[in-house]
Amino acid sequence: MVTKQDIKLIKSLNQKKHRQQLGLFTVEGIKGITEFLDSDFKLHKLYATKQIFSAPEHQIVEISENELRKISALKNPNTALAVFEIPKSKSVNLDGLIVALDDVRDPGNLGTIIRLCDWYGVTDLVCSLNTVDCYNSKVVQATMGSLTRVNIVYKDLSKFMTNYKGEVYGTYMDGENIYSADLPNEGIIVLGNEANGISDAITTLVNRRLTIPQFGKGKDTESLNVANATAIALSEFRRRTIEM
Amino acid sequence: MVTKQDIKLIKSLNQKKHRQQLGLFTVEGIKGITEFLDSDFKLHKLYATKQIFSAPEHQIVEISENELRKISALKNPNTALAVFEIPKSKSVNLDGLIVALDDVRDPGNLGTIIRLCDWYGVTDLVCSLNTVDCYNSKVVQATMGSLTRVNIVYKDLSKFMTNYKGEVYGTYMDGENIYSADLPNEGIIVLGNEANGISDAITTLVNRRLTIPQFGKGKDTESLNVANATAIALSEFRRRTIEM
Repeated sequence: MVTKQDIKLIKSLNQKKHRQQLGLFTVEGIKGITEFLDSDFKLHKLYATKQIFSAPEHQIVEISENELRKISALKNPNTALAVFEIPKSKSVNLDGLIVALDDVRDPGNLGTIIRLCDWYGVTDLVCSLNTVDCYNSKVVQATMGSLTRVNIVYKDLSKFMTNYKGEVYGTYMDGENIYSADLPNEGIIVLGNEANGISDAITTLVNRRLTIPQFGKGKDTESLNVANATAIALSEFRRRTIEM
Repeated sequence: MVTKQDIKLIKSLNQKKHRQQLGLFTVEGIKGITEFLDSDFKLHKLYATKQIFSAPEHQIVEISENELRKISALKNPNTALAVFEIPKSKSVNLDGLIVALDDVRDPGNLGTIIRLCDWYGVTDLVCSLNTVDCYNSKVVQATMGSLTRVNIVYKDLSKFMTNYKGEVYGTYMDGENIYSADLPNEGIIVLGNEANGISDAITTLVNRRLTIPQFGKGKDTESLNVANATAIALSEFRRRTIEM
């Protein structure tokens, strides 16, 4: 059974300030919960309509479909909702390729970028303090479990980049063609805000401007979506590491 | 002023069957509307809180912020809503690169894929009959005007591909490495449904299986999001056309 207190706590986790105060966040659906249970994340409590998870008994609460609807943030809740502890973020591994986000605001975009980091073996994702919280339920949903495999750190991006010794890459309309540019297997790739791109403050710290060239005749084409730009940039950096 | 009849008509356009019956769809926001006004699309009616558009006077209706909220599908309506005519779809240009979608269901994904086609100069996008409608307001919103520059056609995909004489490419987990594969500047690239990938029926018509290799150690990583897979595939096909 779900108590009123449970409902109040779970609902409060829809807000970043409560997630941070309590150090907890929610995951919904069998697949996502299973990935978190199989990872280093610590389970706080698991609410499920069926007994299908292997977690300590005192942490599992059996609930009805109706109760699940009360605590779920989804239109079509799926079997279970789990509350996990937010882990302490680890320090950033400065070797290799790092992705940095300068105020990415859309949860779907952040979730997709986390998945891309996971796919392309980027272990560290550094987010500016104004980037959407990675424990936002929409982000968690969009990551499909990749959140358990990428180290995500929120930092003052200017400070972090100022102290970084390697190259900093950014995508702009007027940079070097990314397809022919010399791209090594380390450095920071910065991606910018959905509406404004990379901010002026961060731009001063970028020392390699790259461009994803446009092939359509439509000079009017809007810039690429930030998640797609990330996909193409990571694809290009990693492609160079394959022996053909 | 917005009449009750206007409200009823505009609201009805949230449903595909009404859009198809009436041959009309909605566009919201100054930027999007301007792109459609500057294209070959025919304006049916324009509702705006300010006189900022250059359209025939009899087609512009001045409305209040409150009236805009009544007709808008957005949480934060932006200045104007326009109703345009759905154009007759042109026949598919069989030369060059064609993107085909096998039951892509998410409006955001379709919108982003249309933007990618526009960016990478793919003039024709062929959608299976179960792919989400490109005049769905969320798709229109996500395309950022690219909808005016890409010819989108809904067809029985099996039939279309059976009659096609060139190569058909699909992305799978067990295909040829896309980074080293020989990719020409023509053919069909098929992308599949978000949950199930490319269907068995369509797979029998694919003669070149490609794989976007995974670089992370996480063998558990879910497949890439379909829009990101499209981004990476188009990037690879077009990259080969650049003289280095």
